[in-house]
Amino acid sequence: MLKRGATQMDFSSRKQEADEIILSFLPEVKGYDKTLLEAMDYSVRAGGKRLRPILILATGRMYGASKEELAPFMAAMEFIHTYSLVHDDLPAMDDDLLRRGNPTTHAKYGAGMGTLAGDGLLSEAFAIMSRCVTKSIISDRKKGIRAARAMEILAEKAGIDGMVGGQSLDVESDKSGRDITPEEMEYIYENKTSALLEGAMMAGAMIGEASDADIELIEKAGSALGRAFQIRDDILDMVGDEKTLGKSTGQDARNGKSTYASVHGIEESEKAVKELTGEASDHIRALSGVKDQKEREFVLELFGTLTERNK
Amino acid sequence: MLKRGATQMDFSSRKQEADEIILSFLPEVKGYDKTLLEAMDYSVRAGGKRLRPILILATGRMYGASKEELAPFMAAMEFIHTYSLVHDDLPAMDDDLLRRGNPTTHAKYGAGMGTLAGDGLLSEAFAIMSRCVTKSIISDRKKGIRAARAMEILAEKAGIDGMVGGQSLDVESDKSGRDITPEEMEYIYENKTSALLEGAMMAGAMIGEASDADIELIEKAGSALGRAFQIRDDILDMVGDEKTLGKSTGQDARNGKSTYASVHGIEESEKAVKELTGEASDHIRALSGVKDQKEREFVLELFGTLTERNK
Repeated sequence: MLKRGATQMDFSSRKQEADEIILSFLPEVKGYDKTLLEAMDYSVRAGGKRLRPILILATGRMYGASKEELAPFMAAMEFIHTYSLVHDDLPAMDDDLLRRGNPTTHAKYGAGMGTLAGDGLLSEAFAIMSRCVTKSIISDRKKGIRAARAMEILAEKAGIDGMVGGQSLDVESDKSGRDITPEEMEYIYENKTSALLEGAMMAGAMIGEASDADIELIEKAGSALGRAFQIRDDILDMVGDEKTLGKSTGQDARNGKSTYASVHGIEESEKAVKELTGEASDHIRALSGVKDQKEREFVLELFGTLTERNK
Repeated sequence: MLKRGATQMDFSSRKQEADEIILSFLPEVKGYDKTLLEAMDYSVRAGGKRLRPILILATGRMYGASKEELAPFMAAMEFIHTYSLVHDDLPAMDDDLLRRGNPTTHAKYGAGMGTLAGDGLLSEAFAIMSRCVTKSIISDRKKGIRAARAMEILAEKAGIDGMVGGQSLDVESDKSGRDITPEEMEYIYENKTSALLEGAMMAGAMIGEASDADIELIEKAGSALGRAFQIRDDILDMVGDEKTLGKSTGQDARNGKSTYASVHGIEESEKAVKELTGEASDHIRALSGVKDQKEREFVLELFGTLTERNK
């Protein structure tokens, strides 16, 4: 995915690091609800970039948090992201049969089990975080407050004031068949895509005891990054390579869906991606409490590669 | 619902008390995701017995907890219960068009919005509890631990080790068309029905700082109550009055679904309900740390009316 030799190694080792943590939180596939656990396991293992957990870890480390402290939030975040994809793929929503070249969860396990696997992943994310909060308070009141606040951030960014809110306007405007206004498009991009990226970085910074001012900058960075990321997605849907992407392109056009790229064209969209990535990076450069500059460099380079990606 | 004059008043005033709290936590219906918020609002207002929040309040009060401390958990619990019904009614699951005599959420708003309304309710439940946990820790470390533990209990009882786990075996066995074993039926009843009742009472007791021994007894009481409640449901599906119930009866038979009542017959099922209700009540009578005996009496009477109900 990365083009630059220097970070390529770094990125793939970080993905591996995130993978190990995420998989260690997956419940064992056994017992009477084995099929459910198998469907959850399948959904999480199907992979992806592990972008959000990688961002939690890097942002947390920027402020000196340890991997152990960040791990429950990394797993919870990826479970939340995965549940959102599983539900988004359902027949009642986008009705997608393939994701990353593999059958989607409902294509493999049925729509009922797909619904429940998503519900199970979301519930488990909060079970993991609740357990972490309880343990944190018992060991150290201040750490407990930070962990509870990190959980609060993820709950809000994942819910009606975040991802679910964005999804709902997206579903509704698709269904109505009408063209969405620029404000509605911004609302969808901000909530459907940016919210979880903001939440990931804010949660990491919260565990690292960043200042409120830094957390606010990080939220802005996540917002710009998410919009750049989503516009890149739109561009790839128009001009990307199906084989590299592992999914069909041209879906937005076939569904008559207006996207930033379809409205503004490829050239202007590329420009917007560049500007938004620059904006996101400026916010990260402006953070005042960063302890580990190497981690800041990694985050900046990650922003670049994400918005330049071809898959 | 109640037959006994003495508690009837009490019960309806408690339902009103719970309703006021639940509705006060409903997000205002406005903004770009208005349809989502409307669908959530519709689902929660559609009503029902408010049994779980009433149990949280009564169990918490047994141990001296205040309504203010219990309120976020009452709302969160009812949102979780409501989401479970909304998802259960989806075309991908039971495909029910009517609940309590009204169109189900997906029948009114479509299956996509039904899926998202459920997701929104579950997320909001965790957002409400997370905010409460943060506030509790800040004000008092001990209260913070109790709130975090109560949230942990609800997360676990609602998820793969509870309700979602039970639902999944139910969905799977329905789909396969095979007869389930007695052990599987017990697993489904315990997790699909008992888990949230256990969670409600345990969370109330946790906020009231009950002892571990009492919380264990309360879990057992919830387990027996849930099984009695579910068998009563089975019986009503066989011999209940559609008008009183506000839903069609005979559904289990039409779906070829084995239930406790269909396997063991009405007479033995009535006996089991009585025995299980007695068992649940004995556990409540055995609690050693109860401060408010009136609340204990209310809980005991509530158990009786729930398992004797005709709707």
